[in-house]
Amino acid sequence: MGSGNQLFVVGIGPGSLAGMSRQAYQILQQVDIIIGYKTYIKLIEELISGNQEVYLSGMRQEKERAVKAIQMAEQGKKVAVISSGDPGVYGMAGLILELIDKGNYKVDVEIIAGITAANAAAALLGAPLMHDYAVISLSDILTPWEVIKKRLTGAAAADFITVLYNPRSSRRVEQIKAAQKIFLNQRVADTPVGIVRQIGRSEEEKRITNLANMPVEEIDMLTTVIIGNSQTYLSADKMITPRGYRL
Amino acid sequence: MGSGNQLFVVGIGPGSLAGMSRQAYQILQQVDIIIGYKTYIKLIEELISGNQEVYLSGMRQEKERAVKAIQMAEQGKKVAVISSGDPGVYGMAGLILELIDKGNYKVDVEIIAGITAANAAAALLGAPLMHDYAVISLSDILTPWEVIKKRLTGAAAADFITVLYNPRSSRRVEQIKAAQKIFLNQRVADTPVGIVRQIGRSEEEKRITNLANMPVEEIDMLTTVIIGNSQTYLSADKMITPRGYRL
Repeated sequence: MGSGNQLFVVGIGPGSLAGMSRQAYQILQQVDIIIGYKTYIKLIEELISGNQEVYLSGMRQEKERAVKAIQMAEQGKKVAVISSGDPGVYGMAGLILELIDKGNYKVDVEIIAGITAANAAAALLGAPLMHDYAVISLSDILTPWEVIKKRLTGAAAADFITVLYNPRSSRRVEQIKAAQKIFLNQRVADTPVGIVRQIGRSEEEKRITNLANMPVEEIDMLTTVIIGNSQTYLSADKMITPRGYRL
Repeated sequence: MGSGNQLFVVGIGPGSLAGMSRQAYQILQQVDIIIGYKTYIKLIEELISGNQEVYLSGMRQEKERAVKAIQMAEQGKKVAVISSGDPGVYGMAGLILELIDKGNYKVDVEIIAGITAANAAAALLGAPLMHDYAVISLSDILTPWEVIKKRLTGAAAADFITVLYNPRSSRRVEQIKAAQKIFLNQRVADTPVGIVRQIGRSEEEKRITNLANMPVEEIDMLTTVIIGNSQTYLSADKMITPRGYRL
């Protein structure tokens, strides 16, 4: 069935080598070629051996990286493309499968899941995702803002705990304020909000605040935001959403 | 600040030791005591040494396990409680933090994230979670059905890719049919649906079908269901949700 040409799309998890799955680590040690965004390559530098080729590229060159990876795999090299977190969540998995679908390449793709920012951030904040949750990217580069707004409104109205990816960039500063407003229409002002920056990296920072007082100016591209549902509460420095046990 | 008493709540990932993070593996090797539901203890048996104590208990004894873990940690033992997938997603993290909040125990808790079923299932199915997604448990043991129904309706209406946890049990057979009906009100009959059973375990099975033809009778407690959004499509044996790149 398979072509024999193997392309792995590997989630490196939240940032440090410790957060990566054992399978991901093993695959990255075994492939001939590792391809990734330069910041992510840096995070896994330690495990790369002198016998491996590394191709790194800049931000927003996802398509170029994906095509290169597919072509090299088609030539018979064992190739791994890395994605931070989970490659299946706003990562490289979809783009690679879409390109293969359209280009009729002879490559077998294996997606290696990683811990995505939602779950990594939750672990640092306490247990905010203990009930039903929604994951929404605020980036409107590939998605019309109207679609994002509809999702925010839906998540707020149905009382989902909500995780925001790509909440704000230097050029894109209004979306996070709009999201805050949408949630304030449905939840009380002191609904807990957790903010984690640079998850799993040495510069990691976290902060627990509330919906009305979200420090929007401090939020950037490297930040993940978790907005609690109507039941989420704070205990000491932890954000907890009860599951419903009688204690 | 800390009490010095250390309790780890460790996500073992989707099932096999390979899917666990390197940090989780290391912690489980270092603790004095490992506590868990017997099926999960079995999954990590290989890494347990003769010097470690193991406490296992049956299903629905989460509270008993949590209390035991907290008490032993308070006595100065290094304790790990394990959860399958991510402990922060319908797992042990919240229960333990809630009990500590109410009981005023002197224990420092560290949550070690794991790859949750949503992401593990997605990797096996292709790249279905490449856009905004919602995670909903269909179990009404701890949550009123009215709340679950509201979340299903909200997720369907706002075009979230939707992951169903605990979709059906031997006693609880109607919820998955109700969920199917709610989604059929908002999405076309051939919306792709991915079904994965026993993720990461030797008995792992996957199947790609569509909303109208979901084999509800084959779905059980060990199954994760992913319903595509309005853009999700099939390519060969892969389920893909486009992110929006122009290819």
